Amino acid sequence: MFKAIVSAETLTAALDSVGVLVDECKIHLEEDGIHIMAVDPANVGMVDLELDAAAFESYEADGGLIGVNLSRLSDIAGMADSGQLINLELDDETRKLHIHIDGLEYTLALIDPDSIRQEPDIPDLNDKLPATVVVEGRDIDRAVTAADMVSDHIALGVNEDEEFFYVDAEGDTDDVHFEMGTDDLIALTAGPAHSLFSLDYLKDMGRAIPNDAEVTIELGEEFPVKMHFTIAEGEGNVTFMLAPRIQSS
Amino acid sequence: MFKAIVSAETLTAALDSVGVLVDECKIHLEEDGIHIMAVDPANVGMVDLELDAAAFESYEADGGLIGVNLSRLSDIAGMADSGQLINLELDDETRKLHIHIDGLEYTLALIDPDSIRQEPDIPDLNDKLPATVVVEGRDIDRAVTAADMVSDHIALGVNEDEEFFYVDAEGDTDDVHFEMGTDDLIALTAGPAHSLFSLDYLKDMGRAIPNDAEVTIELGEEFPVKMHFTIAEGEGNVTFMLAPRIQSS
Amino acid sequence: MFKAIVSAETLTAALDSVGVLVDECKIHLEEDGIHIMAVDPANVGMVDLELDAAAFESYEADGGLIGVNLSRLSDIAGMADSGQLINLELDDETRKLHIHIDGLEYTLALIDPDSIRQEPDIPDLNDKLPATVVVEGRDIDRAVTAADMVSDHIALGVNEDEEFFYVDAEGDTDDVHFEMGTDDLIALTAGPAHSLFSLDYLKDMGRAIPNDAEVTIELGEEFPVKMHFTIAEGEGNVTFMLAPRIQSS
Repeated sequence: MFKAIVSAETLTAALDSVGVLVDECKIHLEEDGIHIMAVDPANVGMVDLELDAAAFESYEADGGLIGVNLSRLSDIAGMADSGQLINLELDDETRKLHIHIDGLEYTLALIDPDSIRQEPDIPDLNDKLPATVVVEGRDIDRAVTAADMVSDHIALGVNEDEEFFYVDAEGDTDDVHFEMGTDDLIALTAGPAHSLFSLDYLKDMGRAIPNDAEVTIELGEEFPVKMHFTIAEGEGNVTFMLAPRIQSS
Repeated sequence: MFKAIVSAETLTAALDSVGVLVDECKIHLEEDGIHIMAVDPANVGMVDLELDAAAFESYEADGGLIGVNLSRLSDIAGMADSGQLINLELDDETRKLHIHIDGLEYTLALIDPDSIRQEPDIPDLNDKLPATVVVEGRDIDRAVTAADMVSDHIALGVNEDEEFFYVDAEGDTDDVHFEMGTDDLIALTAGPAHSLFSLDYLKDMGRAIPNDAEVTIELGEEFPVKMHFTIAEGEGNVTFMLAPRIQSS
Repeated sequence: MFKAIVSAETLTAALDSVGVLVDECKIHLEEDGIHIMAVDPANVGMVDLELDAAAFESYEADGGLIGVNLSRLSDIAGMADSGQLINLELDDETRKLHIHIDGLEYTLALIDPDSIRQEPDIPDLNDKLPATVVVEGRDIDRAVTAADMVSDHIALGVNEDEEFFYVDAEGDTDDVHFEMGTDDLIALTAGPAHSLFSLDYLKDMGRAIPNDAEVTIELGEEFPVKMHFTIAEGEGNVTFMLAPRIQSS
């Protein structure tokens, strides 16, 4: 059983955060909210999304699991005007999701969850990621856009002594260096941290991060990066994890 | 003889309503306004446009007939800024239309009307179209956009008992159903009505219907649909007629 | 030695005026400002740009010459938000230009000036260009857009007797004529003037001319046209010169 009403903005933000990595996903319809974990086909980027029941106008569920085509569901959510409510109701017998937006009813055929790539175990890396920085979403976007002009990979790191967060991209002829000190950052916990990442993944993840979101970035030495931010006025939590590339030097 | 001055908005709205179906058309330059009838090459969609002399700032004509390239004329009208006036004058000798917009003069070579597809007789179907609904242009747009996500054809109909207008689209896995009752509709005359139409034509016609236009839709059982709306603050009348598809079921 | 700080708007306007003709250029870093002269590969369009030291927030140079990839430098300048300052500093040893925008540092490899096409001598044609008109940038844009609908070349001229500036484009079937009298022009010095130009070049140059710029156009009989305008609140001067096409008639 699943019945919920949610604003178009909240549903779209939630779906976008998963849709930048995968086309299909499993959605856990828990009693206290929905939960999605997904990993991209190359096993490089992962996402963990929790959207609390409180993020919905109304919410009822009893622990089911459904498989959905994310781009299809995003397109439907995109039919709603800003501020409109989206009504979701699962038909357990037909395995179809009925989506009402004002006079419009869309009947979405669900996907057998067993046919969808297995959900990842997002590893607990807390002791391996000693550095933490908190930035605005727009700063990630800016660094990634600049880096993209010269390279297809990017180093993220923290300078422990001088206490700043940096982004480095080295091209064949040109270089980009981006640096934010404690004055520019929302918060910084310095620690040894320098890892290389694929720019394509960071660009995709960046598209799902609102410009004004506070993003907590956890970094280590040649370790994955974790990025956390909230959506739906704090009632939704998104975590991205991205595996490092092997150092090219 | 033909001399007229018209606002860019009015001319553009008039041309758009015909241009979604054909590239070239005949324009009747009647004493009391212009009149265009056109049918698309497949004989599926028709348009009838009347723009009264009162829709013009000034208007003089004595019953001529010209043939024009519609996209060319639309491009020229698009050169005018919002609120600017467009001056049209026919040179009977050279068969050219002189179009003045402020300091700009465009000389448009006309097309021999005999070389343009024959104008349709738009049939009088009043006794075959027992149901009438009046909606806003934006509602047509919304229904068509949603239907387009699942199918390339669409059923329009009226539920006589429960008095609502509906749009149905059935895809391979997903379905769209759109429903407007007497509370949502501007007006409804219930009657037996259900017909299937090509979505491509409805999308094209929808592009020419202003979002805030009141559109009168006349429907029957397996019969063409007629859609009427006004432009130019009521001084222009547009009628679209679309032939039904054979039921696929 | 070269160190300068400049607003994003000023740098972008300056680069655009040269970038519409060439991909790479030499920049003279004079004591009193920068100077660029360039000619397109076909030797048809030339540009002369002077940006005074006063156009910069701060400026220090001692007469060097650098070669740059213009589109690359434009992309970097485009990273700055409106109102942001761009910090430029030349590293004489590595021959790299360091570009700082807030926390972002871009290191741009320079090009050997000797590998860039030679700078043109922009001829002094004052006695051959007897007619001068001053128009707003938006009028050039309007005339060029209209002419582009019918032809790939365009005549610019002045009617001495009736004292108006005109633009003529003749297509296979349609014609465009644009005319501005002394009431519409900012200024007019009448004289014998009529020359034919390639529309492609005028479109490119038009893209670099701000809509609200006052553009001084100097014209003669079958002679090049010169167009002057200022950027950076008068502290930058741009001159375009375009060679005429041979009359097709």
